[in-house]
Amino acid sequence: MTVIEARDSKKRILDAAISLFARKGYAAVGVREIASEAGVNIAMISYYFDGKVGILKAIIETFFSQYSQLLVNIDDKDKTLEESVRTVIHRLVQFIRFNTELTLVTYNELPLDVPEIAEMKARKVKALLKKMSGLIRRFGLDPEDILQLTMVFPSLVAMIFAHFRMRPVLKHVLDVNFDDAYYERLTGTLATLFLGGIQGLSARKQKRQKRK
Amino acid sequence: MTVIEARDSKKRILDAAISLFARKGYAAVGVREIASEAGVNIAMISYYFDGKVGILKAIIETFFSQYSQLLVNIDDKDKTLEESVRTVIHRLVQFIRFNTELTLVTYNELPLDVPEIAEMKARKVKALLKKMSGLIRRFGLDPEDILQLTMVFPSLVAMIFAHFRMRPVLKHVLDVNFDDAYYERLTGTLATLFLGGIQGLSARKQKRQKRK
Repeated sequence: MTVIEARDSKKRILDAAISLFARKGYAAVGVREIASEAGVNIAMISYYFDGKVGILKAIIETFFSQYSQLLVNIDDKDKTLEESVRTVIHRLVQFIRFNTELTLVTYNELPLDVPEIAEMKARKVKALLKKMSGLIRRFGLDPEDILQLTMVFPSLVAMIFAHFRMRPVLKHVLDVNFDDAYYERLTGTLATLFLGGIQGLSARKQKRQKRK
Repeated sequence: MTVIEARDSKKRILDAAISLFARKGYAAVGVREIASEAGVNIAMISYYFDGKVGILKAIIETFFSQYSQLLVNIDDKDKTLEESVRTVIHRLVQFIRFNTELTLVTYNELPLDVPEIAEMKARKVKALLKKMSGLIRRFGLDPEDILQLTMVFPSLVAMIFAHFRMRPVLKHVLDVNFDDAYYERLTGTLATLFLGGIQGLSARKQKRQKRK
C-alpha cells in the first residue's frame, strides 16, 4: 500500500461514516457498513481508528479544526462590529452549506449518551469561546460571565444551523431553490437578527446599570 | 383488558419510545426493545400503532398538539408586543424543560431520511405559522413573505431549543445548576435576543423602504 493509497482509505472511511451517520444516526450504523460503503476492508477501520467512537471523534476533530479557521482575523479592529458579524456569518453559512453532513453529524450526536464525546465537545467549545473573547467584548458581553455565554452562544449558533436542519421540511413547505441568492439573503437576515439581538442585550444591561 | 388498562398500555408504549429514541436515536431502536421497556407484549404495538414509524408519528402528533396550545391567547391586543413575546418564550421554555425528550425526539428526527415524517412536519409547521399570522404582523414581518418566514422562524425556534440540545455539553463546561433561577434568566435573555433581532429586521426594512 503506498502512502497515497493509505491517505485515501482513511479519508474514504471518514467520508462514508459522515454520510451514513447523517442519514441514519450514529447508533444505527455499524463498522461493517462503514467499511462496505467506503470500499475498504473492515480491518482498515481498526488500523486507522479506535472503533466506531474513534471515527466519530475524528469527525468532530475535523469539524472543529475547520470551524475555528472560520474565526481567523474576525476580530480585525479596522472593521466595524457589523462588518465583523456579517463576515463571520457569511463564512459560517458558506461552510455549512458545503459541509452540511459534517456539521449535522457533529451537532446531532449531542443528545446521545456518549460521555466521552460530550467531554470532548466541551473542551472544543471552551477553546472556541477563548478564541472569541475579543469579539465577545465588542458584543458588549462579558467573557467572564460564563452563565450569560451559555445562554447566548448556543442560541446564536443554533440560529445558523437551523436552516440546514430544517431544510428537508422546508422543501416540503415551499417550492424554493436553495441557490446562491437564497443563501445571500439568509446571511443578511441572520446577521441582522444576530446584531439586533446582541444590541438588545447590551441596551438592557445599560438600562439596568443606570438604575443602580 | 379494561379501558383504563388499555389507555395505560398505549401511553406506556409512547413514553418508552420517547425515552429510547431520545437516548439512542430513532434508527437504533427496535419495536421489540420498545415493548420490553414499556412492559407490554409486542403484539400491543401492532394493535395500537402502525409499526415503529406509526409510534414516531404519534409522538410528533402529541408534540404539536401540546405545542400549539402554548400559542393560545398569545396575540392578545391588550398586551404589548414585548409582553406577548416574553409570555410565549416563558411558556416554550417551561414546556421544553418538562418535556425535553419529547421535544428532542420531534426535532432530532428531522435530518433522517423518512419522507412521510418530513411531509407530516411540513403540514404541522404550516398550520402553526397560520395560527401565528397575527403575531407575525406585529413583529413587522409579512406573513405572505414565505421566504423570509423560512429564514426567521426556524432560527428563532432553534434559539430556544439550543439550550436543551447543548445541556449535556454545558454540564461539562461549567458547574451550574439548571434550576428555576437559571431558567428565569434564560427566558429573559432569549426574549431580549428575540425582540432585538425582530426589531433589527423591521428597522432594516423601513430603511430600505425610505431609500425607494
